[in-house]
Amino acid sequence: MFCWLSRLFRDLSRSTGRTTQPIWGSLSRSLILSSQRSIPELSSFVARTNTCGELRSSHLGQEVTLCGWIQYRRQNIFLVLRDFHGLVQVVIPQDESAASVKKILCEAPVESVVQVSGTVISRPPGQENPKMPTGEIEIKVKTAKLLNSCKKLPFEIKDFVKKTETLRLQYRYLDLRGAQMQYNLRLRSQMVMKMREYLCNLHGFVDIETPTLFKRTPGGAKEFVVPSREPGKFYSLPQSPQQFKQLLMVGGLDRYFQVARCYRDEGSRPDRQPEFTQIDIEMSFVDQTGIQSLIEGLLQYSWPSDKDPVMVPFPSMTFAEALANYGTDKPDTRFGMKIVDISDMFRNTEIGYLQDALSKPQGTIKAICIPEGAEVLPVFLRANRSWNSPVAKFIMEEQGLGLIRLLEIQEEDVVLVTAGENKKACSLLGKLRLECADLLEARGVVLRDPALFSFLWVVDFPLFLPKEENPQELESAHHPFTAPHPSDIHLLYTEPQKVRSQHYDLVLNGSEVGGGSIRIHNAELQRYVLAAVLKEDVKLLSHLLQALDYGAPPHGGIALGLDRLMCLVTGAPSIRDVIAFPKSFRGHDLMSNAPDSITPEELKPYHIQVSWPTDSAKKRAR
Amino acid sequence: MFCWLSRLFRDLSRSTGRTTQPIWGSLSRSLILSSQRSIPELSSFVARTNTCGELRSSHLGQEVTLCGWIQYRRQNIFLVLRDFHGLVQVVIPQDESAASVKKILCEAPVESVVQVSGTVISRPPGQENPKMPTGEIEIKVKTAKLLNSCKKLPFEIKDFVKKTETLRLQYRYLDLRGAQMQYNLRLRSQMVMKMREYLCNLHGFVDIETPTLFKRTPGGAKEFVVPSREPGKFYSLPQSPQQFKQLLMVGGLDRYFQVARCYRDEGSRPDRQPEFTQIDIEMSFVDQTGIQSLIEGLLQYSWPSDKDPVMVPFPSMTFAEALANYGTDKPDTRFGMKIVDISDMFRNTEIGYLQDALSKPQGTIKAICIPEGAEVLPVFLRANRSWNSPVAKFIMEEQGLGLIRLLEIQEEDVVLVTAGENKKACSLLGKLRLECADLLEARGVVLRDPALFSFLWVVDFPLFLPKEENPQELESAHHPFTAPHPSDIHLLYTEPQKVRSQHYDLVLNGSEVGGGSIRIHNAELQRYVLAAVLKEDVKLLSHLLQALDYGAPPHGGIALGLDRLMCLVTGAPSIRDVIAFPKSFRGHDLMSNAPDSITPEELKPYHIQVSWPTDSAKKRAR
Repeated sequence: MFCWLSRLFRDLSRSTGRTTQPIWGSLSRSLILSSQRSIPELSSFVARTNTCGELRSSHLGQEVTLCGWIQYRRQNIFLVLRDFHGLVQVVIPQDESAASVKKILCEAPVESVVQVSGTVISRPPGQENPKMPTGEIEIKVKTAKLLNSCKKLPFEIKDFVKKTETLRLQYRYLDLRGAQMQYNLRLRSQMVMKMREYLCNLHGFVDIETPTLFKRTPGGAKEFVVPSREPGKFYSLPQSPQQFKQLLMVGGLDRYFQVARCYRDEGSRPDRQPEFTQIDIEMSFVDQTGIQSLIEGLLQYSWPSDKDPVMVPFPSMTFAEALANYGTDKPDTRFGMKIVDISDMFRNTEIGYLQDALSKPQGTIKAICIPEGAEVLPVFLRANRSWNSPVAKFIMEEQGLGLIRLLEIQEEDVVLVTAGENKKACSLLGKLRLECADLLEARGVVLRDPALFSFLWVVDFPLFLPKEENPQELESAHHPFTAPHPSDIHLLYTEPQKVRSQHYDLVLNGSEVGGGSIRIHNAELQRYVLAAVLKEDVKLLSHLLQALDYGAPPHGGIALGLDRLMCLVTGAPSIRDVIAFPKSFRGHDLMSNAPDSITPEELKPYHIQVSWPTDSAKKRAR
Repeated sequence: MFCWLSRLFRDLSRSTGRTTQPIWGSLSRSLILSSQRSIPELSSFVARTNTCGELRSSHLGQEVTLCGWIQYRRQNIFLVLRDFHGLVQVVIPQDESAASVKKILCEAPVESVVQVSGTVISRPPGQENPKMPTGEIEIKVKTAKLLNSCKKLPFEIKDFVKKTETLRLQYRYLDLRGAQMQYNLRLRSQMVMKMREYLCNLHGFVDIETPTLFKRTPGGAKEFVVPSREPGKFYSLPQSPQQFKQLLMVGGLDRYFQVARCYRDEGSRPDRQPEFTQIDIEMSFVDQTGIQSLIEGLLQYSWPSDKDPVMVPFPSMTFAEALANYGTDKPDTRFGMKIVDISDMFRNTEIGYLQDALSKPQGTIKAICIPEGAEVLPVFLRANRSWNSPVAKFIMEEQGLGLIRLLEIQEEDVVLVTAGENKKACSLLGKLRLECADLLEARGVVLRDPALFSFLWVVDFPLFLPKEENPQELESAHHPFTAPHPSDIHLLYTEPQKVRSQHYDLVLNGSEVGGGSIRIHNAELQRYVLAAVLKEDVKLLSHLLQALDYGAPPHGGIALGLDRLMCLVTGAPSIRDVIAFPKSFRGHDLMSNAPDSITPEELKPYHIQVSWPTDSAKKRAR
């Protein structure tokens, strides 16, 4: 759980041994250094002269005024004051003449807010604290003011480990005072700022706000509705600015971006939020390579300087390769254990279920080899080179040798074999691959370097997929505006299920962090896809089709999921840790108790009323 | 209507006479210069080598590839190509070998999208166009590609004057191609970017996103509701991030800002939008002066370089002064015509209604003098120094002389006098003052310099106002979190209606462009204001009250209305002209037809149904 702190405090830890608690000063220092420009003025416009975290020996003798929270007090002699920037030690005056100052500083409860003025002095020899960035100095206080007193807290601010997430969300304003949340939110702000610099200042993108009160999109089952004052008329909160950004290209804006708030009503799903943020980008006259280079440059430019730099270009893999080698469209390429096709080796096998699988269409036999898997799983190839498996006796010698060669099996490795329909077999092994990696790491095997950020493009997705409920019909694999792959356009009219798209996904450490495509800019082609292939009602999109008729430029774009990206960059366990006020997995704001009941009177202007579930349904819900 | 263009093209106009049409090149040039940094790469990642607008004599001989829209064609010999950056002349090849290129360029309808490659050459002597930034050169085309053909347009792009606003909004993607909308949206993007630089990079503010799915605030009658999947539970779309930004201060974030999307359901109101954007700012340990200096610096830093620079500090005026002198809390200080109290002069008047007014509580007589008002209004002081007024015969000589002295009346001036309750009298004259200014300007009198941006702080507002429907009860003049003025705190418990607040408004040219306050950070005081003064249900705000109990720092903030500010900066006639996809004044998206009907099936997951108005109500609605 502490991996995001371990990297942050890595340098510090090296000199001082293991740190189990975040140290404020080093946090802020690394953030300021990472901005690679003159340090911002952190005390402009306010009462303080300095922040708590910035004072060093170079400030000795200076008269300073500090504002902050009382972190703790030691025997009414010392007090440690905290602000967002760090901690500093304050000496509580003991002489009679300063009795009122002493009273304030000794009586204020922990987490009270005080303002102190005094002189920066050296700590007495031997009392320096090398673990504390301000550890060489302390403040000799002359005046003190209690700005606000603090009542008994539901939990200690410095002791953030023991809080349940429910408690953290209920008292989010206290949780935010912790070093970890401060780091996450400040890093997010800085990284987005650098993205803006890259897009606006370096490459001429225009930051354009698009509406969030829009209309329902075809198939937009996950869109929240917003009743209007016209009876029966509703706005929808869009899942992305997709239509608007394409219309901006038709409008000649050429290069658009927006840090866009998006909405998706998925009910209760862990690690999803009903509102989320994407870095939304669209360009005219661009191809897939152009968008990919742009994004590589964007991430390289905005990458935090306390992490290893991002290497570009990112490797690329087709959807087919990803599925064949990793059993997923978002492979975690930080470790091997790739899926290997061993069908050929078992063409003449006596093992019934392998025979069976191979005889069916798309039937294959696939395997992965788990290095050192013996530590956690039944041994497959024993140290005496015999096989430990229920089917060991059916494996012929040349098959065994072939397996060892093909999968590069070492002693104590485990091989997992599956047989069946190609896609299902790959997908199953893909999941097992990740499960095994987790198991191995839980046992202490280092498989994925936590400092490694492994970006990957996945390309050449299918344009359409068979509908789950009715495989005879097709639906868009991503969305209906995705352009077909230029080499496959002819198939659109004959075998649309075989058409690859110009969609691309950006994958980081096995998570999808972005996706985009070159769009259809030809109105006829768009109409054909919507009406003939997807059987959609084109009327709902008539404005977009009309726009394509009026000189739409070729265009394409991408959206990066900012919450997910920041979650991976900070190493946070949940996207809730990179959002200031997240909803619980049931979509509740545990602090304010949203959503909440409202009166029928308040619903009246919107011409709606609540359809209360029947008694039996209510009971079930309880 | 063209004032925003007149300034933009001022320099150009001086050398070439009046321009009635926006010239593309100068637009983009001024935008790039205003960024005060190296010019962004406008052709990175795409097929083109250059933009249409950037080519000059210095590019002579270069092989270029351009992408753009066909603006117009002259006799199949020249074609003018347009992109967001400007216009360039393309020579259509006439020789037999280039027949296919000629065919493409001559047959493509206007507003079709083409890609051309060729050489930058000098125009033949005498054919240069000094009005066109690219007017010294033209492109000798070698290859051409039709990227997309354009159907017959509903209106001409270059001829934006004749469009109705309904047509503009219906085909917004075409309207956006016009120079004026391009300028407005690009300037908005650049100005916001500079604000971010100032806040983030120079002053250590943290850009934090706050939720828009929140819960109803007390008295939040203008909040859109969003049904959730729990029966009877609704989110609300907040009117501002007020509560969240205060909670961030309690969370120790110290300096917050956000370019925040806000929502307000006001039904149909001209020049308001159901969703709008504010630059939302909050700081800890700050006072009113601190916030004001911050905002002055922010506007100075981000002010467009093609406008006269902003002078700081901004002048300040109390609410009482503003009302007394201008009859409004948002005075337009670009011109005089101040309200003057002439009560004393008429203490012994024989004019009945003046006597009457003075005898009542708060009764006053007020006047404004309209210079050169004779051009539009009945003359009051005639050239022969006699009074032209129904009450002229009752004005005694010393009263007349006193008036002339006090109001500095010149010949041909008009004086408007009103008598009555002070606030009403001032308010009436304030409105007449603006009406007269409009009338005078319509007649050609230059009263308000269109190049002048006159910022003003209005301070010392009352904390509470009597409720309109029941003047015995008080309501917040702004919102219940506003702190009382330190000098008036004692009055809170005795005469709350007399308490001034620490609220401040920022006014620009007579429009409110921002407002903020120092907030209450003491839980007891906040409880007293909510419960004892405002009689609000404190349970709805229990999370905020609790937060104030746990060591809330003193804090304050402000919000700037970005749409209104950009409207004034660009001189646009409506905020719809600085928003990419605005709603009509009825809240409709005329392009996509939002809000729209949805099926009962789609409402089911939200446990709501439409309450259709009764037949008679429906008929009335028709």
